[in-house]
Amino acid sequence: MFFELIQTSERSKARLGCIHTAHGDVHTPVFMPVGTNATVKGISVRDLREMSAEIILANTYHLYLRPGTKQIFSAGGVQKFMGWNGPMLTDSGGFQVWSLKQFRKISDEGVHFQSHLDGSRHLFTPESVMLAEREIGADIIMAFDECTPYPSTFEEAETSLRYTLNWTRRAKKWLDENPPILGYPQYFFGIVQGGMHLELRKKSIEALIKIAPDGYAMGGLSVGEPAELMYRIADFCTDYLPKNRARYVMGVGTPWNLLELISRGVDMCDCILPAKHAQDGLAYTSRGVLRYKNECFASDFDLPLDPDCDCYCCKNYSRAYLRHLFKTKEPLGWTLSAIHNLHFYLHLMQEVRAKLLSNDFEKWAEEEKQILAESCKK
Amino acid sequence: MFFELIQTSERSKARLGCIHTAHGDVHTPVFMPVGTNATVKGISVRDLREMSAEIILANTYHLYLRPGTKQIFSAGGVQKFMGWNGPMLTDSGGFQVWSLKQFRKISDEGVHFQSHLDGSRHLFTPESVMLAEREIGADIIMAFDECTPYPSTFEEAETSLRYTLNWTRRAKKWLDENPPILGYPQYFFGIVQGGMHLELRKKSIEALIKIAPDGYAMGGLSVGEPAELMYRIADFCTDYLPKNRARYVMGVGTPWNLLELISRGVDMCDCILPAKHAQDGLAYTSRGVLRYKNECFASDFDLPLDPDCDCYCCKNYSRAYLRHLFKTKEPLGWTLSAIHNLHFYLHLMQEVRAKLLSNDFEKWAEEEKQILAESCKK
Repeated sequence: MFFELIQTSERSKARLGCIHTAHGDVHTPVFMPVGTNATVKGISVRDLREMSAEIILANTYHLYLRPGTKQIFSAGGVQKFMGWNGPMLTDSGGFQVWSLKQFRKISDEGVHFQSHLDGSRHLFTPESVMLAEREIGADIIMAFDECTPYPSTFEEAETSLRYTLNWTRRAKKWLDENPPILGYPQYFFGIVQGGMHLELRKKSIEALIKIAPDGYAMGGLSVGEPAELMYRIADFCTDYLPKNRARYVMGVGTPWNLLELISRGVDMCDCILPAKHAQDGLAYTSRGVLRYKNECFASDFDLPLDPDCDCYCCKNYSRAYLRHLFKTKEPLGWTLSAIHNLHFYLHLMQEVRAKLLSNDFEKWAEEEKQILAESCKK
Repeated sequence: MFFELIQTSERSKARLGCIHTAHGDVHTPVFMPVGTNATVKGISVRDLREMSAEIILANTYHLYLRPGTKQIFSAGGVQKFMGWNGPMLTDSGGFQVWSLKQFRKISDEGVHFQSHLDGSRHLFTPESVMLAEREIGADIIMAFDECTPYPSTFEEAETSLRYTLNWTRRAKKWLDENPPILGYPQYFFGIVQGGMHLELRKKSIEALIKIAPDGYAMGGLSVGEPAELMYRIADFCTDYLPKNRARYVMGVGTPWNLLELISRGVDMCDCILPAKHAQDGLAYTSRGVLRYKNECFASDFDLPLDPDCDCYCCKNYSRAYLRHLFKTKEPLGWTLSAIHNLHFYLHLMQEVRAKLLSNDFEKWAEEEKQILAESCKK
């Protein structure tokens, strides 16, 4: 069994589960650190282990361009290539190709695009992307999809969805005919699209269920819509998604976004925010959002970013020092605060799972959301 | 006793010694990782400990500008500020002020200069710099000197030397009248100048000996002169420097430079090269210089930078992966290769000390210099 549903809350749709892969187990709800180029920016695998990361996300588009997926296959798969011997997931590159500002042409066949690196021309088809994901060798591989922009009319979203469903069918067929090449199973996730149109989201799920992937992602969220709308779409989708399959919301979000989504039945999330905000001088803490670059923290020589945190950064460095590293643009500052932020997300997920197990997730989550979103002052 | 001379080789001027500080012992010959802004670029204190770093160098000019030396004093000194509870040395900022491309005016009083950050105007005098170094609180503090450019006429070098000697006298006087303020001793090093003129170097040493600092640095080296000339000047100086004091050559160099200087009686070195070359895609290895960014290493999935190295980078990551990180400009690549290069330097010093102890340094160093300077091919 790939996904094991352990428990569903009696007070919300929140679920406790476990994903079993050849590289280890992943306990859900889970947050996946983003390692686009087969590296979580500035973070060593030792640090990832220490913060109890269970699964890392990499990106097919980026790895296809550099170093090339054949190269990663030669290394024995992305886990061996990056020295991370735990579970991994690859996004298909659908979102990246969709986001390209340069040339990009979508047809039934797939997407013709130009590399953002050197302008070279490439074609992604569902089949070629599945081959790339086989070569990269992540434990979970995402379907090649067409992300629906926000806002979109019903017709636009429907056309976009047609591509995604057609491509997902072809991807599944190709995978069935072309088994894994690295000696261990790869689980295939379909991606629910349909924009903000409930009817299309439902249609998308019904069609995907027939294709029978191993898990389901909700795509096209966090693309500019209000948070409340995102929650509503996720909430709607989880009502229709099979209970015995993992549900993954892609590219979301803040700690309080995660708590909202989890209470709506979401099992997996990923986001670049912890690393990005670290670079911006912002730390998530148990007392709220701390803008450690601010003057008022310059003399906090004995206070870590979060006194209640036991990450490597908080155990060894002060706010005053972190602020100094930020001001002097020292690379260690980014690494340390990214370690803290990622640890914060992963620790939050540990708490979520403990609260689910003891059946008091909802009340706790309600309070926690308020605290976490507040601005932490001096 | 601050500096303990343990042994001098019978076959060269190489020495084995130990520097005793309130923050621990430093075994010489020693290489000091550079931590200009109170951080060794991209490297955590855990990594510094793991690579057996014994002493870190920071810079008064940089810390005076950011975060300010009063701020570091409030933190309890630079060791507490940066979370490194080992020995430290601060350079005086003389070299940095001398290197400023913007406004800078030297007089008997000191140096008026403009900050490279915001153009603000400042005055460094020997007294103000000693106060700054008292506030920063390193275990070893350098005199404020005037670096002599290369090439310089005898007259130019003599004028420059006059500033340095005058300032060193005033610095020593100020220190004698103003004891340490952080509760532990700080040892004062004078800096030998005189350009490439042997007579002036001798005069510099004779004058410094009268001032009686705790140790001696050789400044104004590695400023564009040929390596052979640098070796000759250092060789000349160590003939005249007191045997019972530590000798430090500032800002040098490659691994083979270090072996040359050590055989000429030098005890301490520092250099930015290991970090800088890491950023340039170049690793020092036991088999020579490895340009790991080169295509020929792209498929070295099972080979670390140096198969004989036991640093964190070599124990966990391959050349192929390091090359990928370099090509994708990922910050982890710089950190990992800097860890390797620094570890390489520190490990080389460990070997030097072991060879000195067993009385076979010279033959080993002769062979090693050849190997290390070679280009490591596929």
